[in-house]
Amino acid sequence: MESNITFAERLEAIGDKVTLALDGMIPRVAGPESELFSAMRYAALGGGKRLRPLFVIEAGALFDVPLKNLIRVAAAVECIHTYSLIHDDLPCMDDDDMRRGQPTVHKAYSEEIAVLAGDALQTLAFEILAHEETHSQPRIRVMLLERLAKAAGAQGMVGGQAMDMAASGKQMEMALIARMQRMKTGALIQFSVEAGALMAGASDEALNALSGFAHDLGLAFQITDDLLDACGNSSKTGKAVGKDAARGKASFVGDLGVDGARERAALLAKQAKGHLEIFGASALILRQSVDFVITRNG
Amino acid sequence: MESNITFAERLEAIGDKVTLALDGMIPRVAGPESELFSAMRYAALGGGKRLRPLFVIEAGALFDVPLKNLIRVAAAVECIHTYSLIHDDLPCMDDDDMRRGQPTVHKAYSEEIAVLAGDALQTLAFEILAHEETHSQPRIRVMLLERLAKAAGAQGMVGGQAMDMAASGKQMEMALIARMQRMKTGALIQFSVEAGALMAGASDEALNALSGFAHDLGLAFQITDDLLDACGNSSKTGKAVGKDAARGKASFVGDLGVDGARERAALLAKQAKGHLEIFGASALILRQSVDFVITRNG
Repeated sequence: MESNITFAERLEAIGDKVTLALDGMIPRVAGPESELFSAMRYAALGGGKRLRPLFVIEAGALFDVPLKNLIRVAAAVECIHTYSLIHDDLPCMDDDDMRRGQPTVHKAYSEEIAVLAGDALQTLAFEILAHEETHSQPRIRVMLLERLAKAAGAQGMVGGQAMDMAASGKQMEMALIARMQRMKTGALIQFSVEAGALMAGASDEALNALSGFAHDLGLAFQITDDLLDACGNSSKTGKAVGKDAARGKASFVGDLGVDGARERAALLAKQAKGHLEIFGASALILRQSVDFVITRNG
Repeated sequence: MESNITFAERLEAIGDKVTLALDGMIPRVAGPESELFSAMRYAALGGGKRLRPLFVIEAGALFDVPLKNLIRVAAAVECIHTYSLIHDDLPCMDDDDMRRGQPTVHKAYSEEIAVLAGDALQTLAFEILAHEETHSQPRIRVMLLERLAKAAGAQGMVGGQAMDMAASGKQMEMALIARMQRMKTGALIQFSVEAGALMAGASDEALNALSGFAHDLGLAFQITDDLLDACGNSSKTGKAVGKDAARGKASFVGDLGVDGARERAALLAKQAKGHLEIFGASALILRQSVDFVITRNG
């Protein structure tokens, strides 16, 4: 990848491309269903760091997967991520009023529209992957689909979210917190990092390296999330802080303490970069993404 | 198909097969996520008429598609149908306490588990279709996936549900009610009826006949639903009645009156059966399903 641009510029450029793609995939419509589409657009186009798209596109570029295909996969991942945020923010779940510095979907629209917009964004993710523009080979599309479904469903993201809810107010062993986070956030990051390699039929060596990278990066990501909740500034994170501790939610910070959690994140970051060595200079942006993940303030 | 068994026996036999398949696809698990899986099983295994599975299996049998493949497609359709019921019953949506004569998922578990169980059942539907056991050819699996996603998403079922919500308390033109119902319930019935023909690479003539059948059947189905809400008995339907009118929801009965709606359903039923003529005696159970749809009392 271009090494003469900064990581922040690269992230912004990728974010713009994916937002543009989603803009085309979620039309404005007239009629009584207009509010549903409006809410889907509000959530999917309204910002977010677009980190997962960066993982899809930068990791896919290592194998020369065409950008137009990678953008579709990145858009599908963002649909899943966005739907999960909409549903997590609902009053019966985390009950959050703000997200990315804006009112959450159920605040800006209504609870019923928030449920439906989340539902429809999940469906859209699979529709995007199934479409022939995502990859010329049906065999590859259906493999991506199956992997995304596993990452997003009861054995992945949704299961992790259920574990998180069940753990509220209870002590949880460190191993269980780690398993919960692998499911809740790790599985989708893993899919994002590995998708391009799968699309290109990459070697087992390359896939294993990316898998190790995604594993360590995902854990570092979640520990940083916990640190931001414990120590962050809501004007920077764009959402309420200190809520995990107030709810007695299991977290790495609760288990390791602030300093211990920072040390763990730094160690995982170093390990994550180590996995990328086989890709040499091509993986510069991915390496930089690790630092971004653990030093971000929102 | 066997003509020496009654329609009710056939429906029950298919229901049992699909329930058994779903039982294998949604495991009981230990750990903090056990409640999620338990709620998914409660909703997906706990009854329901399994009409959509009957459409998948009987229409697929016309083209000699292997039963084991049809059962997987039927299970996927039931996952979508079940997730939509769980979310529709939520307090912020239809706020129903009973479904199929049992407490709804958010009553039996919690609202948060109901949101997540619905989410995970939607994901599972796509995971089932993507798996190689559903059809040997990836090309066919990915086509089924794309069609199911279109039928279930913002341009189909979820969009129809959003229209229904938006129409609450408002007058709606007949043409708009019909469009809403084609999206809300018709699209998934259409997919169920056509899936087997797509799996077998059936002729355009056969596909067109099934498409016409599904269209008329879907409308007859929805008109009957409206009649059951207006005139039904909650001990038979297993859910509250008279709620549409109480909420001022747009319905065929509101527009056509009870007698007019009954006549319209009968006309559509006759048309639906007419589309099946090209299949001769093989379509006996499908013909009988039309009568079942318009004479059911729950």
